[in-house]
Amino acid sequence: MSKPSIKEVRERFIAPPGEKFDLSSRDSGDRKLFPDKKHARKCLQEDAGVIDEHQDLLYATQKKAVLVVIQGMDTAGKSGTIRNVFAQTTPLGMTVKAFKAPTKEELAHDYLWRVHNAVPKKGFIGIFDRSHYEDVLVVKVRGFAPPEAVEQRYDQINQFEKHLSENGVRIVKFMLHLGYEEQGIRLKERITEPHKRWKFNPADLDDRKMWPDFMKAYEDMVERCSTEWAPWYVIPADSRTRRNAAIARILRGELEGLGLEWPDPGYKLEDFDFS
Amino acid sequence: MSKPSIKEVRERFIAPPGEKFDLSSRDSGDRKLFPDKKHARKCLQEDAGVIDEHQDLLYATQKKAVLVVIQGMDTAGKSGTIRNVFAQTTPLGMTVKAFKAPTKEELAHDYLWRVHNAVPKKGFIGIFDRSHYEDVLVVKVRGFAPPEAVEQRYDQINQFEKHLSENGVRIVKFMLHLGYEEQGIRLKERITEPHKRWKFNPADLDDRKMWPDFMKAYEDMVERCSTEWAPWYVIPADSRTRRNAAIARILRGELEGLGLEWPDPGYKLEDFDFS
Repeated sequence: MSKPSIKEVRERFIAPPGEKFDLSSRDSGDRKLFPDKKHARKCLQEDAGVIDEHQDLLYATQKKAVLVVIQGMDTAGKSGTIRNVFAQTTPLGMTVKAFKAPTKEELAHDYLWRVHNAVPKKGFIGIFDRSHYEDVLVVKVRGFAPPEAVEQRYDQINQFEKHLSENGVRIVKFMLHLGYEEQGIRLKERITEPHKRWKFNPADLDDRKMWPDFMKAYEDMVERCSTEWAPWYVIPADSRTRRNAAIARILRGELEGLGLEWPDPGYKLEDFDFS
Repeated sequence: MSKPSIKEVRERFIAPPGEKFDLSSRDSGDRKLFPDKKHARKCLQEDAGVIDEHQDLLYATQKKAVLVVIQGMDTAGKSGTIRNVFAQTTPLGMTVKAFKAPTKEELAHDYLWRVHNAVPKKGFIGIFDRSHYEDVLVVKVRGFAPPEAVEQRYDQINQFEKHLSENGVRIVKFMLHLGYEEQGIRLKERITEPHKRWKFNPADLDDRKMWPDFMKAYEDMVERCSTEWAPWYVIPADSRTRRNAAIARILRGELEGLGLEWPDPGYKLEDFDFS
């Protein structure tokens, strides 16, 4: 079985910048590009290897940073994505920032302050497990900020990401698109499986009760913040394996697209004294 | 072939706290516990899996942090150790701090300021690629600080590590013990192999010229800072595979020794409404 090309995967899952976006037209159980699970796992393994090679190159050249933003409802698979897509990447060249409810000090600043602080430096892949997009998701749905303030944020975020992108940070954003039914199954697993119990938070059910509001907020977020310089990819997330395979393919494409080459300082053995 | 027990590995490589330490009595090419390379690789793979499981447990319980300090001369294998021992650990539960020459701001503080700032929080494994020990190694050998100041640091470091250990941080320290000859081979590889060239720094040869001074500084460091609460392990590093296998065994033992258990908040399915 041949792998779907990177182009195919990108085109199927991207939210095209500047276009209207309808989340209901996307199937969270979509298996078209990866019909076979075993094959998807093989694709992932290969791509994870290439991602690792390119991460080394990124580290060696110290010219660019890559920022991977991951958003999704509870149980959509943010941690699982990080674990699997970067399974072969050394932790030495990565940073992972999991954004939680802001602290008092963070709240005393504008909402992008803590985000800017966590942007990866050159040479690194930085992963955001949740991100500044919470400020137009949960904050919007629960009314933690006035609607006029939230309304301004889409443009502010686009400008912020443009600034980063003009300064050497390649940004790729993944919305893990999980179905309502699949979330129910996964939340129940968190109660019944001993190794998952610690992950269950009864408050997750409150978010689940507001599912349509969250979906609307996700839709707005994707439509208004998928840009040429920081596109949103909406990844079907009901199947963990296919989710990982799709993200790895896209990320591999992004890394290869940086066009980095191994630095050669031009040293020769005979220039040095090894006695 | 049976694996050497964790106890055997610890006892062979630990620098017993409070005892005199003679670096020349340790063989950088020691293969006694792992005579067979393939077998060492298998041990590593198994132990890396167990390390990952325990890292999950660490993250789930949020009670303890583990700080792994790695020191060694150039090419001793600090990056390779991190890559291989944590090959199966998700980056979400780890932090890696590579200490470089201090910045102006760092120099304006005491030498432990930047170190304290990088200590992993509860739930995390934090790795130091170099550490505060540079302040009694290169700083001592090159005279970057007055000898009286360096002399005070051993006790200061012990007290600092004691403080951390009393506050939930388990500290394990590995000195990668590389032979002079093997370093020569590896430095040459950095010049001749295209993927390694970026790692070569002509200044590394200056350190090499002061090898005996560095070895003396390492010996002092190990002797004076191997404590009950933060022991030094001196790992033969001429063989990469055996080095990884030994470190993974010891680290596995440390993690298992924490005695953590999966939290059970006691939720039941029937307590919640999943409609």
